[in-house]
Amino acid sequence: VKLLTVARDLKRRRARERNTRFVAEGVRTVEELLRSPLHADGALVSSTLTSTPRGTALLESLRAAGVPVLEVDEHDFASASTTESPQGILVVADIPQRDPAQLALGNTARVLVLDGVQDPGNVGTLLRTAAAFGVDATLAMPDTVDLWNAKVVRSAMGALFRHQALACEWEAFDALRAVHRVECWAADASGEPIDRRPEMHSIALIVGNEGGGLSREARARADRRVGIPIAPGVESLNVAVAAGILLYQLRP
Amino acid sequence: VKLLTVARDLKRRRARERNTRFVAEGVRTVEELLRSPLHADGALVSSTLTSTPRGTALLESLRAAGVPVLEVDEHDFASASTTESPQGILVVADIPQRDPAQLALGNTARVLVLDGVQDPGNVGTLLRTAAAFGVDATLAMPDTVDLWNAKVVRSAMGALFRHQALACEWEAFDALRAVHRVECWAADASGEPIDRRPEMHSIALIVGNEGGGLSREARARADRRVGIPIAPGVESLNVAVAAGILLYQLRP
Repeated sequence: VKLLTVARDLKRRRARERNTRFVAEGVRTVEELLRSPLHADGALVSSTLTSTPRGTALLESLRAAGVPVLEVDEHDFASASTTESPQGILVVADIPQRDPAQLALGNTARVLVLDGVQDPGNVGTLLRTAAAFGVDATLAMPDTVDLWNAKVVRSAMGALFRHQALACEWEAFDALRAVHRVECWAADASGEPIDRRPEMHSIALIVGNEGGGLSREARARADRRVGIPIAPGVESLNVAVAAGILLYQLRP
Repeated sequence: VKLLTVARDLKRRRARERNTRFVAEGVRTVEELLRSPLHADGALVSSTLTSTPRGTALLESLRAAGVPVLEVDEHDFASASTTESPQGILVVADIPQRDPAQLALGNTARVLVLDGVQDPGNVGTLLRTAAAFGVDATLAMPDTVDLWNAKVVRSAMGALFRHQALACEWEAFDALRAVHRVECWAADASGEPIDRRPEMHSIALIVGNEGGGLSREARARADRRVGIPIAPGVESLNVAVAAGILLYQLRP
């Protein structure tokens, strides 16, 4: 029953930070977790899981991987779940300890910098997009939603488990910029369009908060502002859509 | 109190279709509605609205526009609301009667076709993106979530009120294709990248369901399949991100 208490507790960011553990919930997310290098501490399962062949297969995979499984009733499962329609499977796993000072970046690295992005669904989609376009690392700066929030984990669809996504402070970012000679490009509605493939060097793309845009810290570090021309009268693009277009244009 | 009953009822798709009315909720969405040509039948307001200057200004705008305002307590407001943290304002408005047979399209039109896109947040973001890139119309084909669903309305951020978004059947789409000489390009993971600006003709971009991809109907109509190259091992891009990149590449 300890696993149940831990899983409930991990809904809070504080608890995740103290325990350096998070919860991966749902059939697909747990499948991705098992395929990743992350360590699973234990699985919480209800009878809903084995109502589908895919769920039954997942339970077998968990057992084969040596992950301790605790079976609970629907009511207890729901108390730990963060979804409206639980699929009867969640796993408590270790948050990987990723350090900005130890990131390995090549000569034409791409880094995505989340500057106060607040919506968990947006952050999940941003991580998925970064992984798809071969971005080397995604940095979650202060005021960005916790990367290990259950909804971020779910909407990242596994990208968080393999892609180098990590929390970062501006000081550590400055050190990383200097060491790896990374140019800072900040996404901004009034920025200039990217009209040709960038030169062969490393670039960090900074995207700001959904409503407020770039922070003072980000603006101070921007070597260049880039944007996407849109129709007059339309306020802005969704942050994940805008970042998707820019990262696609920036692919090395 | 009739407005309260109507607003509650409009949570259901059936009721929206029968009444040809929908609900726009939240300060920002209602501000956008007032700036649009759509007709507002009445506003439901709780005291939460006037707790901010922006909300107070909106209430004045509603009165100045001659929209009947019904004030209710928080409890009644919550019963009609579809958000977790209501801002104390929702408006019942007429669904504009848009007909695929009467769409005005130029010689280099762009049409976005939603082929069974199910997530309301994705559809809202797709509409916002289509409006931003000057897409002429967005067609919601069978099995796509209702365009006038409260969460679609909210995440479209006003795009639904001015952009020509409408439900459509495949037969009506075929007629539109023939009349306007529209080429069908279907987004598909294995499609070829768009490597240059398209010729001067009209193009409909079809995007499929989040999990299942393109329908049989869509595949049968595709003149060409287009895609975005992504890193190996990453399953796919989010549908709104993928459509954003393709629509950006397809802008006339």
